[in-house]
Amino acid sequence: MKNLQDLCYGIVGLGLMGGSLGKAIRQNILVKGSKGKILGSDINASSLSLAKEQNICDDTFSIEQVDSMLAECDFVYICLYPHATLKFLNDHKTYFRNDSIITDISGVKSFMQAEISSFNSVLQEKNVDFILGHPMAGGEKEGYSNSLGTIFNNHNYILVPQEYNKKENIELFKNLIYKLGFTHIVETSSLQHDHKIAFTSQLCHVIASALVNSAEDCNITEFGGGSFEDLTRIAMINAPLWTELFLSNKSELLNHIDSFEKSLSSIKQLIKNDDAEALTSYLTDVRIKRISMNSNKSEKSVF
Amino acid sequence: MKNLQDLCYGIVGLGLMGGSLGKAIRQNILVKGSKGKILGSDINASSLSLAKEQNICDDTFSIEQVDSMLAECDFVYICLYPHATLKFLNDHKTYFRNDSIITDISGVKSFMQAEISSFNSVLQEKNVDFILGHPMAGGEKEGYSNSLGTIFNNHNYILVPQEYNKKENIELFKNLIYKLGFTHIVETSSLQHDHKIAFTSQLCHVIASALVNSAEDCNITEFGGGSFEDLTRIAMINAPLWTELFLSNKSELLNHIDSFEKSLSSIKQLIKNDDAEALTSYLTDVRIKRISMNSNKSEKSVF
Repeated sequence: MKNLQDLCYGIVGLGLMGGSLGKAIRQNILVKGSKGKILGSDINASSLSLAKEQNICDDTFSIEQVDSMLAECDFVYICLYPHATLKFLNDHKTYFRNDSIITDISGVKSFMQAEISSFNSVLQEKNVDFILGHPMAGGEKEGYSNSLGTIFNNHNYILVPQEYNKKENIELFKNLIYKLGFTHIVETSSLQHDHKIAFTSQLCHVIASALVNSAEDCNITEFGGGSFEDLTRIAMINAPLWTELFLSNKSELLNHIDSFEKSLSSIKQLIKNDDAEALTSYLTDVRIKRISMNSNKSEKSVF
Repeated sequence: MKNLQDLCYGIVGLGLMGGSLGKAIRQNILVKGSKGKILGSDINASSLSLAKEQNICDDTFSIEQVDSMLAECDFVYICLYPHATLKFLNDHKTYFRNDSIITDISGVKSFMQAEISSFNSVLQEKNVDFILGHPMAGGEKEGYSNSLGTIFNNHNYILVPQEYNKKENIELFKNLIYKLGFTHIVETSSLQHDHKIAFTSQLCHVIASALVNSAEDCNITEFGGGSFEDLTRIAMINAPLWTELFLSNKSELLNHIDSFEKSLSSIKQLIKNDDAEALTSYLTDVRIKRISMNSNKSEKSVF
């Protein structure tokens, strides 16, 4: 079994996620005396020089030089938007090192799994193992400068293992995930991932955005106690990324919006009818349901 | 001008809010050497004995004894549900001390203002000044045992001054509000209060409740990164209280629900149409709007 401390990690895309991964690997895995190293590539030269200056990356590579980086790496984290991840994989599929492990951080999985199957044989010829994953952590401020090695602490990670994935690689990856600070790993299918994520993440972003959109003015928070702020913090959204996520998981998301609209419509009807008894019963059920969701885990504060 | 340290405070209802007010007054105002005191009344005997044991109340009164408490108090905080507040005021209107100030904490103001006008003359005969107010702080856990003197820190307070209110009493009250830990006071009309609160508070509670209601199962948080939790924390709702708040502000709330539904419907349509450009533009506008709401104040975490 490979030792995490000895690996050469490659990070493609040193944004909020890639930067945070680099910092967490540096802080938690490549402790003093480790043989491993971290290589980074990005289109943004200033992110690269900052990552090197801060000793997060041992070496950095422009995107034109990335193939020479890939040739060195045991473990490659592709931290790009979903379609860019696919394009990167396809464009560079012959350059990954033999026996290396690759993973992505994309928030949609079904279309990714389908598209990869068209060129995965090229990866497998070199025993390169691509593992689909989704770290459920982040923040509303993008970019390397906002990255932080601690943002994964106490968060969930979803893995979508495929038949072709090697067991020992999945185990090594799980070990890495826990070392990064995540406390809970769920293994599921890409369909199930997209179905669940459309609810817990995408629907929430849609609701938060619609709520901000419906605000009459920007001084509304003067009249608030924090509820509006809590519901809309995630509306400080990375617009191009979330456009891609919403549209790549369109049918699941639309189903969840429909079902939320029905729930909203039913509570609206109870209010319209002045039906105090049914409204109290609806809210009591909701309270019990929400408390039970809470019972097995501590609350978290970042999306 | 009266000195806050010398006043006798009465708190009717030692729940989360009443208890927290008592604690904040004790910690921030009645510092060592103050002549003032705190009296408390509640239907729950164990809350009363705990408040006395913890030296939050100097004396406590069962609800049957409350009139003798009111006769002593310079400043009475009625911390009951909205309709119970009105009933309490009406039932005990002749027992308040001459020249005393009374206030409420109710989350709806228009109906309160209208109802009070029918018996306010009785209060005014004794120079008792009732000031409508709404402290914008709280928490999802009710009861005296969850009260905390610090929950008001950095929060907003809404005052709804009436023509009959004495200027010096409003000034004294504002002084008290800042000492309790609030950092921002908004003065407005009851109509405007109910219009704004229906959006920042009630609509948010309706949305959070509908979102929990639409969840397929209680294990959904396994697949979450915290967005769902952030959007639904306030759904651990006090059902009877919020039923009353929703129905007492029905028309304002229904209007806001309608307008939110329209915003949601428009973003849904963009997703349905695969209109990436318009969707990115919608989300970009939302991001800019939400950031501008944030710019003048620090983020808060409790509703």
